[in-house]
Amino acid sequence: MYLRIKQTVFSVIQPAEKGNVASKIFDVFIMGLIFVSIASVFIMTFDISRETTGFLNGLERASIIVFTAEYLLRIWTANLLYPELSPVRARLKYVTSGMAVIDLVAILPFYLPMFLPIDLVGLRAIRLVRLLRVFKLNRYSEALVSIGEVFKKKYREILVSVFFVLILLVIASLLIYYAEHDAQPDKFPNAFSGLWWAVATLTTVGYGDIYPITAIGRLLGAVIAIMGIGMVAVPTSILSSGFMELLEKKTAAPGNDGDKEKPTYCPHCGKKL
Amino acid sequence: MYLRIKQTVFSVIQPAEKGNVASKIFDVFIMGLIFVSIASVFIMTFDISRETTGFLNGLERASIIVFTAEYLLRIWTANLLYPELSPVRARLKYVTSGMAVIDLVAILPFYLPMFLPIDLVGLRAIRLVRLLRVFKLNRYSEALVSIGEVFKKKYREILVSVFFVLILLVIASLLIYYAEHDAQPDKFPNAFSGLWWAVATLTTVGYGDIYPITAIGRLLGAVIAIMGIGMVAVPTSILSSGFMELLEKKTAAPGNDGDKEKPTYCPHCGKKL
Amino acid sequence: MYLRIKQTVFSVIQPAEKGNVASKIFDVFIMGLIFVSIASVFIMTFDISRETTGFLNGLERASIIVFTAEYLLRIWTANLLYPELSPVRARLKYVTSGMAVIDLVAILPFYLPMFLPIDLVGLRAIRLVRLLRVFKLNRYSEALVSIGEVFKKKYREILVSVFFVLILLVIASLLIYYAEHDAQPDKFPNAFSGLWWAVATLTTVGYGDIYPITAIGRLLGAVIAIMGIGMVAVPTSILSSGFMELLEKKTAAPGNDGDKEKPTYCPHCGKKL
Amino acid sequence: MYLRIKQTVFSVIQPAEKGNVASKIFDVFIMGLIFVSIASVFIMTFDISRETTGFLNGLERASIIVFTAEYLLRIWTANLLYPELSPVRARLKYVTSGMAVIDLVAILPFYLPMFLPIDLVGLRAIRLVRLLRVFKLNRYSEALVSIGEVFKKKYREILVSVFFVLILLVIASLLIYYAEHDAQPDKFPNAFSGLWWAVATLTTVGYGDIYPITAIGRLLGAVIAIMGIGMVAVPTSILSSGFMELLEKKTAAPGNDGDKEKPTYCPHCGKKL
Repeated sequence: MYLRIKQTVFSVIQPAEKGNVASKIFDVFIMGLIFVSIASVFIMTFDISRETTGFLNGLERASIIVFTAEYLLRIWTANLLYPELSPVRARLKYVTSGMAVIDLVAILPFYLPMFLPIDLVGLRAIRLVRLLRVFKLNRYSEALVSIGEVFKKKYREILVSVFFVLILLVIASLLIYYAEHDAQPDKFPNAFSGLWWAVATLTTVGYGDIYPITAIGRLLGAVIAIMGIGMVAVPTSILSSGFMELLEKKTAAPGNDGDKEKPTYCPHCGKKL
Repeated sequence: MYLRIKQTVFSVIQPAEKGNVASKIFDVFIMGLIFVSIASVFIMTFDISRETTGFLNGLERASIIVFTAEYLLRIWTANLLYPELSPVRARLKYVTSGMAVIDLVAILPFYLPMFLPIDLVGLRAIRLVRLLRVFKLNRYSEALVSIGEVFKKKYREILVSVFFVLILLVIASLLIYYAEHDAQPDKFPNAFSGLWWAVATLTTVGYGDIYPITAIGRLLGAVIAIMGIGMVAVPTSILSSGFMELLEKKTAAPGNDGDKEKPTYCPHCGKKL
Repeated sequence: MYLRIKQTVFSVIQPAEKGNVASKIFDVFIMGLIFVSIASVFIMTFDISRETTGFLNGLERASIIVFTAEYLLRIWTANLLYPELSPVRARLKYVTSGMAVIDLVAILPFYLPMFLPIDLVGLRAIRLVRLLRVFKLNRYSEALVSIGEVFKKKYREILVSVFFVLILLVIASLLIYYAEHDAQPDKFPNAFSGLWWAVATLTTVGYGDIYPITAIGRLLGAVIAIMGIGMVAVPTSILSSGFMELLEKKTAAPGNDGDKEKPTYCPHCGKKL
Repeated sequence: MYLRIKQTVFSVIQPAEKGNVASKIFDVFIMGLIFVSIASVFIMTFDISRETTGFLNGLERASIIVFTAEYLLRIWTANLLYPELSPVRARLKYVTSGMAVIDLVAILPFYLPMFLPIDLVGLRAIRLVRLLRVFKLNRYSEALVSIGEVFKKKYREILVSVFFVLILLVIASLLIYYAEHDAQPDKFPNAFSGLWWAVATLTTVGYGDIYPITAIGRLLGAVIAIMGIGMVAVPTSILSSGFMELLEKKTAAPGNDGDKEKPTYCPHCGKKL
């Protein structure tokens, strides 16, 4: 009897399989609560009345209770998730998994002020990480996994590009500082302002709060801005070749045309089984 | 006799086949009227004289009459478009098709004020959707269809990217709000301003109306701006691989080199028959 | 004797073949003059002394004489360029070719004021087109031709994208006008300002001279800005697949690995012979 | 004995092979010093106290001593790096190699003021080139080499694109000058301002310090901004096809799947042996 309840609870809190209506309702309810919770953080930054604040705080408390219950239920049923492990080890493994840590981090800020004098508003931002759970959605996991695979395959090239960009940023920030400091001491008081300018220019954002006015500064700006194009071109090309590689592998493998024999992914971490 | 007139009308209002001069003239006339109608909406936003306004209103009325007549003729000849259906069903099918809905939406705003007290100027914007009809142009339909195919094939990956971007936007907007609210309460009064800043930064538009000034805000801005590069790189790579996939399929299929055996597309919805 | 001089002149004014020193010197001289001429147009926009202006005008006159002589010599030797045509037809063909028209347009503005009261400064800008001649440079012609081939192959898809973008711009400009006109009548006085904003946003330039301030305008701005990413992604993907197609064709053709059997290009138009 | 010390020193200052702890420590120490040295240049641009300046100057002197010692040791052991050459030639070859020149340039600015009256602050910027040494990092060299290979293979196409962009910039700058000079003589005093605007627009940075206000200037701006999209698309496509070419070559070569048979690279220049 106890085992049967546990198994039912487990099948409900897991991402819904086809036909399991209760699990589907649970999933939608939790996701809805996540959206409501984030919307509430958003609304609280507006100049709202006392009543609205009170209502949102109540909502907050209610959702925390639900999330806490969900977290505890997941720990309780963890041994069904990893049947090959002993109950204690299964729970330990679950608690230390990425998704469980996110769940804990999302509810902890509420309980901490009971023990510690912590600013609630600031910590509430941490609840945003809960949004990551939305990726557990079954529907698009295949697409996500293929994007993730490309990133994993090309992370070295991407890392090298990012590293190169950082070096370029530091060099550009110091050069622009030396070029513009005398002409605009208020805009370029130190190299940090130069770094901010370099980021805005190299990414082609160009806010326009700081920009060079001397001839040499503008020449430097032109070079950095044109290099910014390369900064888009290189990672795009790397990812492009990654997607093509994936595509060729798929078409090369016989009887695996992406729709029929789809691999199963772990409902908890999204990794291939 | 009645049927012959109907058939002639039908062949004229359909996109012109090679050699059908009357149909070609009709197509050009309707397209010209669409452009004139849009230009008139454009010109009306300027500070123009009473005479010009009167002239444009007259033009507007005339074009509405033409568009209404066209719409009715299309309904009348709908049974020739779907000869396999009964006349009533053919018309119902046509009326509910995308293009017919656009046609109706484009003329409705003119008739509504006769019955309802609606602001004409605001609704006139809806007439813009008529522009979509330009895509019925036969000439480039093949190119459009191949772009459309790529989007259709990759919509899952694109949806996932868009979803990821939305989450990133919400997180960034809340973080920047917490970072900058105290330093610039007038620029970042609430998280909505943060969202606006996040959109402008992540898309690398960078208007410069709102930007971080604190060290932590600028660091966050730098991270978001650099992520913005990834935001361009990922969909570009996805579409790239989609175009390559299409290309390989085309070259793989024998005797189908894109020019000789071109497939027929529905003249109404642009879909492959 | 006359023919020999003509042949020598012809070989000199043609792009230098390997070993022809006189022709090489002529090429470098003409190219140098083009750069000097453009630099002079550039410098003349600065606040310069009377002497400098006089010197630049003299330089201008001298270069015009050289360019005129070059143009006449090219017409004179045109029958050697098209030996299969009659002398008159050869010259007519040359005079109407793209490069010859550019040459004429580049020297005409100088002679026009002799007969017509035309503003010299304004027309001098036309001389800029002479810069296009630099593309006749032999060295990189192969790379240019391959880029050109991709554009030629994909011009339909590119045209469709550009057309789609124009429609998007017009729709966006009208929508933003209706959304922002009442809030900022000075920034959005008419739909043309909306169009300017739409261009700056969709291309992610974002000058920051005009931007939405209302909630609905910002929402519209966010959608347009995110669409701007697609605007980069689509043509990039199209060109990417074009380059890949070219690459596959090259590697598929046996014994044609790009370096050994390079095709000959016409020295005048750069087209494949 | 002397030879053994030399050999030990050599193995330590070379990039660490697996298992050589002393060499690993040396590498980390030198890299740490490079980062500290750059951070110090960065910090010195801030408004800091006399004590901090003194401390940073001391740190600077210490790091210069270490870098000098490293440089001399590298010259001393150069004959072990090129065992096939005579000791003198080996040292000459090393001293003229790219990495050694960077090393020398990085320490020279400190010694020059002893002999010449040079501004120390300005020259310190040269020390930034030391950052390039970071690329000697063994770990990611493979990824870097593959990116470098693509650039090397496609440099002609890239050069042509850059050249085309420069011509476009010059033409755009003169056109915008003629279009906007009369309306905004303070913003567009000469063609150089036009060039600055053209760079900011074509790269889609768009600071917003200079922008067209006349109808013709805005039309020109729109055309340039839309061309800016092509400016991203063309190099991205070129690099994409380059990465794909590399990929196909790799997969075509049997038994060379990138991980097992990795080629050895020179630890000094990063080139393939």
